[in-house]
Amino acid sequence: MITTRRIFTFLLRLIALAATLVATIVMVTSHDSANVFNLTFKAKYSNSPAFKYFVIVEAIACAYNLVSMLLASKGSLWRLVIILDVVVAVLLTSSVSSAFAIASVGKKGNTHAGWLPICGQVPKFCEHVTAALVAGFIAAILYSLLVIYTLYTVLNPLFVVKP
Amino acid sequence: MITTRRIFTFLLRLIALAATLVATIVMVTSHDSANVFNLTFKAKYSNSPAFKYFVIVEAIACAYNLVSMLLASKGSLWRLVIILDVVVAVLLTSSVSSAFAIASVGKKGNTHAGWLPICGQVPKFCEHVTAALVAGFIAAILYSLLVIYTLYTVLNPLFVVKP
Repeated sequence: MITTRRIFTFLLRLIALAATLVATIVMVTSHDSANVFNLTFKAKYSNSPAFKYFVIVEAIACAYNLVSMLLASKGSLWRLVIILDVVVAVLLTSSVSSAFAIASVGKKGNTHAGWLPICGQVPKFCEHVTAALVAGFIAAILYSLLVIYTLYTVLNPLFVVKP
Repeated sequence: MITTRRIFTFLLRLIALAATLVATIVMVTSHDSANVFNLTFKAKYSNSPAFKYFVIVEAIACAYNLVSMLLASKGSLWRLVIILDVVVAVLLTSSVSSAFAIASVGKKGNTHAGWLPICGQVPKFCEHVTAALVAGFIAAILYSLLVIYTLYTVLNPLFVVKP
């Protein structure tokens, strides 16, 4: 039971590590340029605060993930890791949600606010952002599952008396 | 110890209930109109998918909060409540993050994408949205704290053996 739990959480962390690494790299390398009315229009992730926040959070989560796998194997700081998992799950959810909201306006625009879509002009940029968001979503879902799985196992009647 | 925990989580849920209720009502009642070049420009929450998502999630969280307080007092379904708390914390974080990202564009615009700020034209709408977002942030933080507090208490050495 304990071994199964260790292997399962290790696998979740490993896939989450890959997802956050991919999300960071793909978002950072996203850029494209277009000529509109003789003006060169450059699109890169740092043009949007939401995309910058996304990169920062994914990079932090990636680094934390590596450290947590080392700590979890040593087993002394597992309580801290469990609490920090919640913080990272919340941060990942927050970063992917805000970046997704901005990416949606970039793709569809908003006629009510007069915001025009930009993906027609900078398709390569939008493809990169979409790929980064998919990786970010996977990481956020995996971390949420990790928290739920931890709660499920620590609430297991074999391990716990009713608080 | 058990009584202190019950009172503390009850208080957290009560404030979160108030926050989600305020967030839902304030966002739904947000509307303003402006005349630009003889065109009437109406701003309301349903003009943005992110704001609609915000209202839906805050309303669901509000209803869940009421039900969870009833369930928690009965004590039979407390395991389910603890798992659902994580789901609600993630949903609240997601909804407030995406709404905040769109509200930021509404306030500051984005020169790189050519999106103009709209808060100068519809200040009342923006004030309502800001108030709703503050309430939404409070609700998201309270739910995250609730999950961390639950983990902290169930991981207490008095109650649990190391998994």
